[in-house]
Amino acid sequence: MDRPDFYPVRSLIYVDLADEDYRIKLENWLYRYHVPDSIAQFGPYVSKYAFYPALPMPEGAERFGTVRMQLTEHYWLANPNDIGFAKNHHKALTEVFPKDVLVWQNNLPDEGKSHSVVKGESQNFEGDDARATKGNEELGTVPFIFAFIPVWWEDDLKGEGRTLEDGPNYRWQFMVKYPEGVSREEGDKWLMEEFLPEFAKQKEVNRILSSKIKKEVNNCEFDRVVEMWFDCPTAWKVAVKAVSESVKKPSWAETSDFPYLKKSYGISGIFLSDIARSDNLTQYRGYIPMR
Amino acid sequence: MDRPDFYPVRSLIYVDLADEDYRIKLENWLYRYHVPDSIAQFGPYVSKYAFYPALPMPEGAERFGTVRMQLTEHYWLANPNDIGFAKNHHKALTEVFPKDVLVWQNNLPDEGKSHSVVKGESQNFEGDDARATKGNEELGTVPFIFAFIPVWWEDDLKGEGRTLEDGPNYRWQFMVKYPEGVSREEGDKWLMEEFLPEFAKQKEVNRILSSKIKKEVNNCEFDRVVEMWFDCPTAWKVAVKAVSESVKKPSWAETSDFPYLKKSYGISGIFLSDIARSDNLTQYRGYIPMR
Amino acid sequence: MDRPDFYPVRSLIYVDLADEDYRIKLENWLYRYHVPDSIAQFGPYVSKYAFYPALPMPEGAERFGTVRMQLTEHYWLANPNDIGFAKNHHKALTEVFPKDVLVWQNNLPDEGKSHSVVKGESQNFEGDDARATKGNEELGTVPFIFAFIPVWWEDDLKGEGRTLEDGPNYRWQFMVKYPEGVSREEGDKWLMEEFLPEFAKQKEVNRILSSKIKKEVNNCEFDRVVEMWFDCPTAWKVAVKAVSESVKKPSWAETSDFPYLKKSYGISGIFLSDIARSDNLTQYRGYIPMR
Amino acid sequence: MDRPDFYPVRSLIYVDLADEDYRIKLENWLYRYHVPDSIAQFGPYVSKYAFYPALPMPEGAERFGTVRMQLTEHYWLANPNDIGFAKNHHKALTEVFPKDVLVWQNNLPDEGKSHSVVKGESQNFEGDDARATKGNEELGTVPFIFAFIPVWWEDDLKGEGRTLEDGPNYRWQFMVKYPEGVSREEGDKWLMEEFLPEFAKQKEVNRILSSKIKKEVNNCEFDRVVEMWFDCPTAWKVAVKAVSESVKKPSWAETSDFPYLKKSYGISGIFLSDIARSDNLTQYRGYIPMR
Amino acid sequence: MDRPDFYPVRSLIYVDLADEDYRIKLENWLYRYHVPDSIAQFGPYVSKYAFYPALPMPEGAERFGTVRMQLTEHYWLANPNDIGFAKNHHKALTEVFPKDVLVWQNNLPDEGKSHSVVKGESQNFEGDDARATKGNEELGTVPFIFAFIPVWWEDDLKGEGRTLEDGPNYRWQFMVKYPEGVSREEGDKWLMEEFLPEFAKQKEVNRILSSKIKKEVNNCEFDRVVEMWFDCPTAWKVAVKAVSESVKKPSWAETSDFPYLKKSYGISGIFLSDIARSDNLTQYRGYIPMR
Amino acid sequence: MDRPDFYPVRSLIYVDLADEDYRIKLENWLYRYHVPDSIAQFGPYVSKYAFYPALPMPEGAERFGTVRMQLTEHYWLANPNDIGFAKNHHKALTEVFPKDVLVWQNNLPDEGKSHSVVKGESQNFEGDDARATKGNEELGTVPFIFAFIPVWWEDDLKGEGRTLEDGPNYRWQFMVKYPEGVSREEGDKWLMEEFLPEFAKQKEVNRILSSKIKKEVNNCEFDRVVEMWFDCPTAWKVAVKAVSESVKKPSWAETSDFPYLKKSYGISGIFLSDIARSDNLTQYRGYIPMR
Repeated sequence: MDRPDFYPVRSLIYVDLADEDYRIKLENWLYRYHVPDSIAQFGPYVSKYAFYPALPMPEGAERFGTVRMQLTEHYWLANPNDIGFAKNHHKALTEVFPKDVLVWQNNLPDEGKSHSVVKGESQNFEGDDARATKGNEELGTVPFIFAFIPVWWEDDLKGEGRTLEDGPNYRWQFMVKYPEGVSREEGDKWLMEEFLPEFAKQKEVNRILSSKIKKEVNNCEFDRVVEMWFDCPTAWKVAVKAVSESVKKPSWAETSDFPYLKKSYGISGIFLSDIARSDNLTQYRGYIPMR
Repeated sequence: MDRPDFYPVRSLIYVDLADEDYRIKLENWLYRYHVPDSIAQFGPYVSKYAFYPALPMPEGAERFGTVRMQLTEHYWLANPNDIGFAKNHHKALTEVFPKDVLVWQNNLPDEGKSHSVVKGESQNFEGDDARATKGNEELGTVPFIFAFIPVWWEDDLKGEGRTLEDGPNYRWQFMVKYPEGVSREEGDKWLMEEFLPEFAKQKEVNRILSSKIKKEVNNCEFDRVVEMWFDCPTAWKVAVKAVSESVKKPSWAETSDFPYLKKSYGISGIFLSDIARSDNLTQYRGYIPMR
Repeated sequence: MDRPDFYPVRSLIYVDLADEDYRIKLENWLYRYHVPDSIAQFGPYVSKYAFYPALPMPEGAERFGTVRMQLTEHYWLANPNDIGFAKNHHKALTEVFPKDVLVWQNNLPDEGKSHSVVKGESQNFEGDDARATKGNEELGTVPFIFAFIPVWWEDDLKGEGRTLEDGPNYRWQFMVKYPEGVSREEGDKWLMEEFLPEFAKQKEVNRILSSKIKKEVNNCEFDRVVEMWFDCPTAWKVAVKAVSESVKKPSWAETSDFPYLKKSYGISGIFLSDIARSDNLTQYRGYIPMR
Repeated sequence: MDRPDFYPVRSLIYVDLADEDYRIKLENWLYRYHVPDSIAQFGPYVSKYAFYPALPMPEGAERFGTVRMQLTEHYWLANPNDIGFAKNHHKALTEVFPKDVLVWQNNLPDEGKSHSVVKGESQNFEGDDARATKGNEELGTVPFIFAFIPVWWEDDLKGEGRTLEDGPNYRWQFMVKYPEGVSREEGDKWLMEEFLPEFAKQKEVNRILSSKIKKEVNNCEFDRVVEMWFDCPTAWKVAVKAVSESVKKPSWAETSDFPYLKKSYGISGIFLSDIARSDNLTQYRGYIPMR
Repeated sequence: MDRPDFYPVRSLIYVDLADEDYRIKLENWLYRYHVPDSIAQFGPYVSKYAFYPALPMPEGAERFGTVRMQLTEHYWLANPNDIGFAKNHHKALTEVFPKDVLVWQNNLPDEGKSHSVVKGESQNFEGDDARATKGNEELGTVPFIFAFIPVWWEDDLKGEGRTLEDGPNYRWQFMVKYPEGVSREEGDKWLMEEFLPEFAKQKEVNRILSSKIKKEVNNCEFDRVVEMWFDCPTAWKVAVKAVSESVKKPSWAETSDFPYLKKSYGISGIFLSDIARSDNLTQYRGYIPMR
Repeated sequence: MDRPDFYPVRSLIYVDLADEDYRIKLENWLYRYHVPDSIAQFGPYVSKYAFYPALPMPEGAERFGTVRMQLTEHYWLANPNDIGFAKNHHKALTEVFPKDVLVWQNNLPDEGKSHSVVKGESQNFEGDDARATKGNEELGTVPFIFAFIPVWWEDDLKGEGRTLEDGPNYRWQFMVKYPEGVSREEGDKWLMEEFLPEFAKQKEVNRILSSKIKKEVNNCEFDRVVEMWFDCPTAWKVAVKAVSESVKKPSWAETSDFPYLKKSYGISGIFLSDIARSDNLTQYRGYIPMR
């Protein structure tokens, strides 16, 4: 069949920032070039497209592969990588996606400060190629993490019933990738039965949710996404410290230190508030600068 | 399969009002709390979400189980109760839905006037639990009617071809539930072949449409929805009087008086104009009070 | 000078409904014809244009000249009747305003039910002419009340400091016109020193605000606007009853019964909730009917 | 099954204009009547609905069946003609679609200038009936072309990788219908292997894309859609002249002159810029005239 | 005083097009660069900012200095050239306004086809400098016409009372500049007492409106603006022919042929429908291309 | 006169953050409570209302009184503190403004972590009272800075002509308050003739703009606002270091170290990008949380 299955699915992209010097360049590309390019492209089969800014990284969060720019979230009506959909898949217009963007996002190494603005002569990437960037652990760059997850959370480990009237939430969202040779079942056994339950015991933790990543969509290397809610960063620090001292190290530990997964390559996350900076399909009005 | 079928479907919720003293409380909850909670929840797979205010009840309409607050309408892209979709179905945030709302909507009995505002200490309901409230006929409350119907009307009994240029329409929309032991086929035989044709004969009736309720979606107890258009309430009264005198009573009549179905439990309806008060996905801007 | 003064001012129009048979006709005219006509006309110098539906009239409210359709509210940046502005004042397009509208609004007597839809052959009014309709007390019609008041309330008699978190408000807004020969000072002496203070004593009254009507703008015959907030209609009834029994009748009383002002011609009001049905400049999207 | 397949599909309607005298009448019908009628009807399952104005016809373009009003584009989530969807398919309201519109669009012959405005007494068409108008070659009218094509372009013949930063595009979009008795395969053999490659050789051509028309959706008589991008009309003229002199005439040629397909009945097209005049689902605000 | 007077005023800019080859370049600049630049700049004190496309030029209209791109309309709350406002007037950001734009708009002569896209190396103009371009009659360019007129029309010569229900309007808007040495009074004597009354006699003319241009705002060289409404271009042609044969030539005639004013320099106009293509403050959503 | 002068004016509020633990609480209050309260209140006479997030503080910026939450910007059509406007100035609803907000914003000292959510029992402030908070230098809190400045920049010291095509701007906006006993003239002599010119010499500085604060509006204690644009934080650091070593210390220096003005009380600033997070009047859609 030459058309896609109905496949309501949510996707999450973690956008890092290699250097504060690049923050406004990346913001400029995202809001001046990328939002209209993206709406033009997937508007007809994406039902939500939002940017959530990364909250400032709390002390100690670097070890967890915390990204510094934003979470990009989509809700799709069809798998954009579906073979039936993508076969004979030609874009009229390619998105503006200079190589510098991948440097700014810390996906490609920085060969001298990339101060050029968007219209530089740098190579243009087709977006899907860009999103396939894997990072280079030795050079300190990070993988381009693009994960598809169910529309609904699959596992609810703590705090069901919480409402907006219960106050704002300091959300720690992260993904884990189990080491080579460790199956998802084996990895989950530790994560779901040791690691998360230990967090669930902490009074600072208000809510824990988790889902398996739909690796089949785009061969994402990560296995599972978790969201944990706290009142504030101090609560996060207290809980992490307690768990780091009590949780059992898994037999397959990738690193000797907590959380026993490699920074950025085994665990990567972001700190978020409850609301988006921009729900692009409904709020975008062009790039209007301050006078 | 762990994802839902494509299932474009429309749903209708009839919202009653137990007492005029609760009207502004219910409006406050709907617009200040429930719309944003709902958009956050189902925005990615609902394509229309609108509120249509109930027109004032015409004389004689009480007998037909007429509700007094509003019709809530959704168009879904997937059945929200689909087993594949709802399995492992966890909400990050539960909607704010105090028990008082069910009192205001006349779904739960009023134990003393429920004057508390939303943030009262009253119990919070998860929305699907709330929507499963069945009412108590003896106590005079009404069931929470939530019916799924096809996107298109199935049966067109009178007035096809009417356009907006033909003038505004006074719409009587109602649902019927045949008595226990009466099959839909048997009930329809009377409704579609006796009751509605009698209305179709009246010159005051401009349009008649009907569809079967998709009971399979959420086990709705009602069987069929009908929409009849008039020029005004006087025309409605004239037509109802004429039909009440001419239509045959069904052998399975639930009550001895016209329309031979129990008030609120066998028939429930609402009077509507052509347009929504709020098409929430496109018009909602927050809760902005008058200065 | 050939241009207007800066004159930020709010205006209030009370729209009555002669008969429930006309409700959907009036709604159709307001939303299908009048909103776009109005935005086209005054969009460049009006900063807010909203419709607030009249809540159902509580028992006993008819005596107070309560209108049944809506409050139309504008915030103007310039006085639309300013001599400098209106001199050489020609509209490219006249608004669609058939005489039937004035019948529906109970401003002109009903000579046989006006069932024609908007495009009838009936005479078209220029809007300012329509808004100058004065009603005919003997025929039971009501005046077209169009009052300009300050942007801010002038007098705060009870309840300052109330916030949205204190709960929704059942607002009774009304205007009074003192009898011929009674100066505003004399009338206010009773209203502000006897009538309103008596209401202020009632525990059911949460808030009282008032302003003088800017009669100089358009020669409005009414003198003062008052807004009183209650929890619900029952509270309104209790308070009105108490005050009707305790307040002193003014020496210049126009009628022998409370509130000593003629229905519709001496006092006219409306019951409102906190929010608009449509904030037209930001929410209007055309006239989109229910499928 | 009584519900449609998920069928994301794009549709294109070419709207011609019989006479400049009808341009503002057609615009008035499209924006004042047809957009709200359409949103009301298909809003719940259409994800994009846009109008792109026809650029002025360049010299020589008449021969290619160039239309003069606009391209109407939809992205559907379900095939509106799907048997499961359309069975028991009744519209509550029929769209306002007077016969004059088909005269203005050059689909029906002009029997005396159709100067009536929308509310004329002329016959009203149901939209699907109107869209089935086939034109009459001898009378000089054109068929109502309504073609469904894939969401993505199937064939990319030149210029992949072009971005918005490369400059605006003068787009020539056209459809071809092979003569009776010529299969799509046979026709494509010439079009895809002779005709388009010859264009691809011209330096004035920046981009060529093509897709097969999904004739199965609505029995569209046309076979294939092509989009070719130039810098400007002069570039188009130069390229067409060169190709007309070099391309081989197909054995099945319908006409003796280039492009060997009948005007309007064998080839029909439109000249477009990159952007819509109105993306109706997000930008429509009603019909607001200039003061 | 260091702040401006309140000065509600409308402005009109006639945008010509030197060559069809530039149409999409000019559109690209207007919608991709100029709208956001402009909103950023004057959003806080402009209440309407709209683009109305020029309808195709009817036969014979060239003589009247008809422009081919668009009318740009603003409603200002303050005179942007007011001395108090503009003193110490520094823009944080200058608008993107390459010299090529003035070539495309036919305000500067074309020195070889200006095919460069916006980001060319060409000189950037500050907008107010650009808008002061005067054209060069001998080289065939046209002046940049930027006229301020009252919010309301000053003179109503025919057709008062027309509503949208009377049908769409083919609007001919034009401005005249009397010859050097002819006072506005003298010029108006002919225009208002000979020329326009002759048009008013023609049955093809539905409406005539006029206002004096507020030359004091920005030293606009034109004296008066006129708007005349017809049913269609044929009606325009008939009326113009009749008037050209009957109207008296003024003693101060600038040219020997009707309308006795120099093309583009003595008379310039545009043909318009009733509605804008884009009401930028409310409808702009960025530059989203067709897929 | 009982109505305000036309007074187009811009205002800037610097919002600090006392502790990262309060960031999401403050965001929650701003977006869930304060935006709708504010739009309700001043919507009719404010033409722009935007929030610009503070960029992360660069190393060394603390000394300059850098705030950590956001810049709140309004454009007013009338001075909200104008005596004519504010006389008889009563708000129907007071904004929700708990004392905790002032703790979160670092305007009031923190007496134990203020973890309560908005609906806490804490005292509610009227907004104007809140905005009059002056801070307490000894306790380490900061003043509530609310400054009115001209719509246009008054002084342009470097970089006129810069456009958006020149790349994104790292904006350092700050205000200075000269010490007690130093007149604005005397202070400006140093700032405008020594301090800013020294910055203007640095190649890292792309743009410098400044205006006097309109202290007469609300008795703001600060004297002048400056905006300086860089490519990135590193450029800022380089330039500040150079200037700190070269600029002359003023005779009236308040502190012995550069910049010779007291932290937060003599100088306060914020780092910004070119665009707002939320242009509230056009983009706000309620508080919609992430699922």
